[in-house]
Amino acid sequence: MPEILLTGFQPYGGRQLNPSAEIIRALDGTKIAGCSVRGMLLPVSFKAAQQPLEDAIAEHRPTVVVSAGLWPGEPVIRLERVAVNRASFEMPDNDGQRPLDENVDPGGPVARAVTLPVGKIIPALRAKGIPARTSDTAGTFLCNATLFRALGACERAGTGARCGFVHLPYLPQQVAELLDELSNEGRLELHQRADLASMCLDMMLDAVGTILTLSLDPS
Amino acid sequence: MPEILLTGFQPYGGRQLNPSAEIIRALDGTKIAGCSVRGMLLPVSFKAAQQPLEDAIAEHRPTVVVSAGLWPGEPVIRLERVAVNRASFEMPDNDGQRPLDENVDPGGPVARAVTLPVGKIIPALRAKGIPARTSDTAGTFLCNATLFRALGACERAGTGARCGFVHLPYLPQQVAELLDELSNEGRLELHQRADLASMCLDMMLDAVGTILTLSLDPS
Amino acid sequence: MPEILLTGFQPYGGRQLNPSAEIIRALDGTKIAGCSVRGMLLPVSFKAAQQPLEDAIAEHRPTVVVSAGLWPGEPVIRLERVAVNRASFEMPDNDGQRPLDENVDPGGPVARAVTLPVGKIIPALRAKGIPARTSDTAGTFLCNATLFRALGACERAGTGARCGFVHLPYLPQQVAELLDELSNEGRLELHQRADLASMCLDMMLDAVGTILTLSLDPS
Amino acid sequence: MPEILLTGFQPYGGRQLNPSAEIIRALDGTKIAGCSVRGMLLPVSFKAAQQPLEDAIAEHRPTVVVSAGLWPGEPVIRLERVAVNRASFEMPDNDGQRPLDENVDPGGPVARAVTLPVGKIIPALRAKGIPARTSDTAGTFLCNATLFRALGACERAGTGARCGFVHLPYLPQQVAELLDELSNEGRLELHQRADLASMCLDMMLDAVGTILTLSLDPS
Repeated sequence: MPEILLTGFQPYGGRQLNPSAEIIRALDGTKIAGCSVRGMLLPVSFKAAQQPLEDAIAEHRPTVVVSAGLWPGEPVIRLERVAVNRASFEMPDNDGQRPLDENVDPGGPVARAVTLPVGKIIPALRAKGIPARTSDTAGTFLCNATLFRALGACERAGTGARCGFVHLPYLPQQVAELLDELSNEGRLELHQRADLASMCLDMMLDAVGTILTLSLDPS
Repeated sequence: MPEILLTGFQPYGGRQLNPSAEIIRALDGTKIAGCSVRGMLLPVSFKAAQQPLEDAIAEHRPTVVVSAGLWPGEPVIRLERVAVNRASFEMPDNDGQRPLDENVDPGGPVARAVTLPVGKIIPALRAKGIPARTSDTAGTFLCNATLFRALGACERAGTGARCGFVHLPYLPQQVAELLDELSNEGRLELHQRADLASMCLDMMLDAVGTILTLSLDPS
Repeated sequence: MPEILLTGFQPYGGRQLNPSAEIIRALDGTKIAGCSVRGMLLPVSFKAAQQPLEDAIAEHRPTVVVSAGLWPGEPVIRLERVAVNRASFEMPDNDGQRPLDENVDPGGPVARAVTLPVGKIIPALRAKGIPARTSDTAGTFLCNATLFRALGACERAGTGARCGFVHLPYLPQQVAELLDELSNEGRLELHQRADLASMCLDMMLDAVGTILTLSLDPS
Repeated sequence: MPEILLTGFQPYGGRQLNPSAEIIRALDGTKIAGCSVRGMLLPVSFKAAQQPLEDAIAEHRPTVVVSAGLWPGEPVIRLERVAVNRASFEMPDNDGQRPLDENVDPGGPVARAVTLPVGKIIPALRAKGIPARTSDTAGTFLCNATLFRALGACERAGTGARCGFVHLPYLPQQVAELLDELSNEGRLELHQRADLASMCLDMMLDAVGTILTLSLDPS
């Protein structure tokens, strides 16, 4: 019985919400193209986020593993192509840890390539009217580290699982709150901000559903 | 019987859609807070767009006049504060005309101030989770010219009508198409683009409904 | 003996430098096209910045009045077209005052138009290889208020003085410091920043010299 | 006798200039920290750019290999961390070729890590007042392919050469020309542009000199 493993992150950086957590809340326990979705909410912790994910891959041997995360300011659905073996956090994680220029896995390769059918997914998303693009960097924060470790775990599981990462824009209400906060604090110098784009949850869910459906299809 | 006049524009600049036209399509003939909405679709023409709008204001003497237009790249609902007496088009209109450094109305003032209760509207939109901001420039394209003329027509009508302009982001499908076009044509240098943000139509409709409702309320 | 009045601002917003103050430091007391430059450094204070400027215009009756200010994130020399009668500060000034939705001059018009030969200046700057553009909003911070008051003072002086405002990018060292600060504080989420552009002081001086020279020429 | 190999690219994408070519023109044949600089101008050709560079590394066995290229819109000196084994050109090269989703080297690893002392260089640049940052993606255009191949050639040479890539902003005159072109063609919708930042050549030369000096120093 094939299974999808879909992970998201808890809120971080002082934010109330994380769109990837909302995705998990909505899709955990549902079926997509006849396949059960196991949702998994990861802590925003360099130390604690990785092992549970690797264990889940080893134990449940999912057919498809997709992690989702927030990229503040990203205006479109963004599908990653590659994860690098580097952790250099621009801000502390929720444990207060901030690795700088470390390896995610000291014994690992320089990078790992995503195994989702990205070239099939992007045109399908756009054909549905969903703005989407590929990306060749998942950053060096926890999103990248998670993708790097998940790809390694899938390799070790030897199941041929397809594994990748989708970066999500802010939810609209997050930008509404951000504008209010900045304004109240006298810091709303809009010309300094590149992070006011957002996407509604329904469109994100449609996007993630499409990504999972096409990733299940071996053709 | 109080009436709302709501205007939008036809597509322009080679685009298939204009979110402001979709707003008109959805709201024309409906009632908002008990008040009829008269929708009016304006041509993207410096010559032909203004007179019909001025005539409609003179004839129907609406209580509220709101024009809507697209601002490619804008990530949030953007409520204008002011219209200037200057037309300097960055691109030709749909008639192929491109005024450069002209007055909208050679006998008019330097600028006119919007008369919507903007200070009440922005917090209300954000409280609903809709990203919104004010702006002190409506540009010098047709949107600004339309606002400048509408404000003048409302003054002449002497009805105390509240009049303003809302700039809308792209619809998501417009960005999906833009990405596809750029990609197909070998022009997808993403680092050159600042216009990939979008907002779904439902949220735009919610925003415009809120703007109209609060503009009707004299308190 | 014709005279140029050139104003700049002190640093603000926790910054160490203001490029407009460096411009004043470099050009005060020099001659441009045979005309003396009187440099004037204004405090970043809604209350205290305006009167000294108005007094200087009344007393010295300059032929050309150009104010300069920083616009963080602006990548090019930006020449304003218009000042609006509105003060709505996104952050407190150096006195800790933060006007919100006030008039700059309660008895004044909605806006005043710049009287520099902008249409002649922009092509000249570009021909020299200096990136430059016009702008139809000077914001609603102190820059706009200063321009609004200076234009009014020039009108009252009745000398036909040409008066305008130039917004400047960051100096490169300011961006270098900003990147360091953000990095040290764990706030370097680059995807949130739209304010990393800069321009070297020599090019700014060349630009301001060109603006002043062309503004002196009555043809 | 240690040698520096410094490469740049010819103009491309319809542009008249490439800042990296100007860097080569200025530094070829000079000495930096007592070490000769061999400048090499590469064609913007996926087919023809790589072999000459690999041959030069094999033949001259340089101590330091730095390639430079333009990243339109980049506001700061940007030092790459990694090259990926993927070529997916967003636009055709100067031969009219446009690889899509190909490998740079079908037999190579997923990615290679830069061997310059990046962690030492960035603070040094900022301390000199030069805006600089690291990057974890060199894109998937020719810059990335060149870096990927150069790193491989240095490995094969077995000399322990330090090898990396620096992305440069536009030169100011390029942005001046771009603004003029867009304006003349009626395409100056500034809200669509994210590529108006620039840096003067002197600062780029100072940056490249610093990068080379620090890369020579084995400590």
